[in-house]
Amino acid sequence: MIQKAVILSTGDEITTGKVIDTNANYLSDKLAEIGVDLVAVLTVGDVPDRLEWAWRTAIDLSDVVISTGGIGPTADDLTTETIARLAGVKLWRDEATVDHMKRMFATIARPMPENNLKQAMFPEGAEVILNPLGTAPGFRMPMTLNGHTSNLIVLPGVPREMKPMMENSVIPWINSHRGTNKVYAVRIFQTFGMSESALDEAVMGLIKPEEAKVSFRASFPQISLRIRVEGQPGEVERRADELAKRVLDKISQFVYAQGETTMEDVVGELFVKKNLTLAIAESCTGGLIGHRITNVPGCSRYFKSDLVTYSNEAKANVLGVSEATLKTHGAVSEECVAEMAVGARKRVGASVAVATSGVAGPDGGTPDKPVGTVCIALSSDDQSVTRRYQLRGTRDWVKLLASQVALDWLRRYALGLPIGDSALFLR
Amino acid sequence: MIQKAVILSTGDEITTGKVIDTNANYLSDKLAEIGVDLVAVLTVGDVPDRLEWAWRTAIDLSDVVISTGGIGPTADDLTTETIARLAGVKLWRDEATVDHMKRMFATIARPMPENNLKQAMFPEGAEVILNPLGTAPGFRMPMTLNGHTSNLIVLPGVPREMKPMMENSVIPWINSHRGTNKVYAVRIFQTFGMSESALDEAVMGLIKPEEAKVSFRASFPQISLRIRVEGQPGEVERRADELAKRVLDKISQFVYAQGETTMEDVVGELFVKKNLTLAIAESCTGGLIGHRITNVPGCSRYFKSDLVTYSNEAKANVLGVSEATLKTHGAVSEECVAEMAVGARKRVGASVAVATSGVAGPDGGTPDKPVGTVCIALSSDDQSVTRRYQLRGTRDWVKLLASQVALDWLRRYALGLPIGDSALFLR
Repeated sequence: MIQKAVILSTGDEITTGKVIDTNANYLSDKLAEIGVDLVAVLTVGDVPDRLEWAWRTAIDLSDVVISTGGIGPTADDLTTETIARLAGVKLWRDEATVDHMKRMFATIARPMPENNLKQAMFPEGAEVILNPLGTAPGFRMPMTLNGHTSNLIVLPGVPREMKPMMENSVIPWINSHRGTNKVYAVRIFQTFGMSESALDEAVMGLIKPEEAKVSFRASFPQISLRIRVEGQPGEVERRADELAKRVLDKISQFVYAQGETTMEDVVGELFVKKNLTLAIAESCTGGLIGHRITNVPGCSRYFKSDLVTYSNEAKANVLGVSEATLKTHGAVSEECVAEMAVGARKRVGASVAVATSGVAGPDGGTPDKPVGTVCIALSSDDQSVTRRYQLRGTRDWVKLLASQVALDWLRRYALGLPIGDSALFLR
Repeated sequence: MIQKAVILSTGDEITTGKVIDTNANYLSDKLAEIGVDLVAVLTVGDVPDRLEWAWRTAIDLSDVVISTGGIGPTADDLTTETIARLAGVKLWRDEATVDHMKRMFATIARPMPENNLKQAMFPEGAEVILNPLGTAPGFRMPMTLNGHTSNLIVLPGVPREMKPMMENSVIPWINSHRGTNKVYAVRIFQTFGMSESALDEAVMGLIKPEEAKVSFRASFPQISLRIRVEGQPGEVERRADELAKRVLDKISQFVYAQGETTMEDVVGELFVKKNLTLAIAESCTGGLIGHRITNVPGCSRYFKSDLVTYSNEAKANVLGVSEATLKTHGAVSEECVAEMAVGARKRVGASVAVATSGVAGPDGGTPDKPVGTVCIALSSDDQSVTRRYQLRGTRDWVKLLASQVALDWLRRYALGLPIGDSALFLR
């Protein structure tokens, strides 16, 4: 019965601070999702006695140990040998793995170096976990130490290879060995416009602890809400949908998507679907809105241009903002962004444009317009909206948050929702 | 004598995958820099018996334990109590800390909640570590378990508060207790244009292992090289400078800065110093160059505008790219980016402009212009340079790498270096 897990991260590159261990974070998240209790994460460098200590300790504390790294072809990759030594077994060579590796090298038209053969060696008793995207497979084997048995799962350290192995092989295996036929259904909502604590308050009354586990992930400026329902196959999905509907009814105006996606992806999908085209005019956000929009593959179907006019001359010359507006109201004003949006839209004939201008800081604030003051405008054939926000935080936060509000305006425009209701908590 | 360290990261938010543990990475890096051997990183949730296990284990393995998190005001912050219990001592309240906390709350004009008083409680025998940027101080105390003594260092989990405490208090303390009067001098070079392995080869012959420790950190698209010299105060800085000069003589054309800085910071400093002004024209990079340039505070002194022209009409209307060029050579061509750069510069009267156009992928490639084809141009009063590169990687890598090349062109222009020599390995 698998209830308790330990994650083992190995590698000198982690213990000397060269790389951030994002694998442990990914695995923690996945284990939490299926309700496995993570007792500890142990991280050690490529040192034989430390690896052995870590494995002994991990086995002692857990029902399953998930290890990443240490199965490469080089001399400092010691995971497989360490496990074989602890188990008191020999290594064997899996010829199917050798064939797989040779095929992988053939696709990139390179001969396989001799030392890669090391990656086809497994401790006796191990079951190979296929690695469709890389040369090194992982493996799984039970081990008993001091009368306690745990299941060792050994995966490569490369996230791109490790993640599909986890999702396609390891999680189904763990699920089928959890000693219960309970399954989980997860619903994820991406939200914007409500603080984490306000969201918490809004949702807590709606779902009883025995109905589902509710949790939040804040990845600024996005807060996602997860509902995890535990139950029997065949009924759990229906219950998850029911709870999701209950939550949506309450907070729908703050939910911009369901599932793992981003605001710019949502805007992109809507613009394609509604046959809209987009122009942007940026000042304080400096190109970030355009950068985010163009992170979406295929954005050329709707995105025309982003005119980043940082200086007043550029606002006048490129976007046609009037001298009078700049003189009377200043560049950080609702009047200015309104003219910027109209100018950007007309210049390239886009159906809708957003514009930003503000004081990103740390300098440049005044009593009237302190750091964090950001004006946003939207212009289309049928609408012209402007708002002034007071954002808080460092320069990069102000830029990021302003870009998120601007993208939310575009989403609302495409959906026909009232634009001015976006991000009321920032007003 | 402090030689071996263990890092302890605590918090349910880490073990359930809600946040990535960047503190452990930062601390690992700092310890490596001063030559302290990191035996292990232990991560556990806010569970009393797991915390106790982690502290026992950490003390057993180390001369110093550095812990982050678990000293907040709420009920699940258990670090201080756990340590007091293990040490068999009582908690005492530090009135100086209470005064400090009251002053911190006064500056934000809020009353101090009662539960914050918890943060002024310390185990007997602890020495307070001041936290100038937050309410909760840290503490340091020695503890002996099973005849082995380690030094416990307890810091808050908020990186912004923890880092200055580490740098101003903890590292000097560790250095003065390393049982050696050896000190370290570190020199850091930021490089671009050479792969990590090529850099490694170039430098390895220059510095003998007994002279200095050489290491690399790759944070795409930037590779930094560190030289760490160990020696006596008074002579170690001179030797570090000598080695740094030796390295610079060999790879100077790939080094864009010394110390912890970014390409956009370097460009900014140079533009201010040389009194230059900047215009940008982007296509495939979509606003990323402008975003990076405007991440630098005070960039309005040199940055005028970034005209992101994604569509062909925008390239023609906004930048004046000729129909003939678009028809004959296409938008992804050296001819097109040359016209984009000139158009961007003239429109706002900037002294220099860069332009990008390419195929960021994943779609849109052709046999002539596969995904990753990127053309870059620079235009100034006295120069006009264009180059075509073949970049590899996903959409975001192509964008990021192209933006790095464009920024390097600006740096080279400001320094009077040959622009076409940038990033030869990508041609």
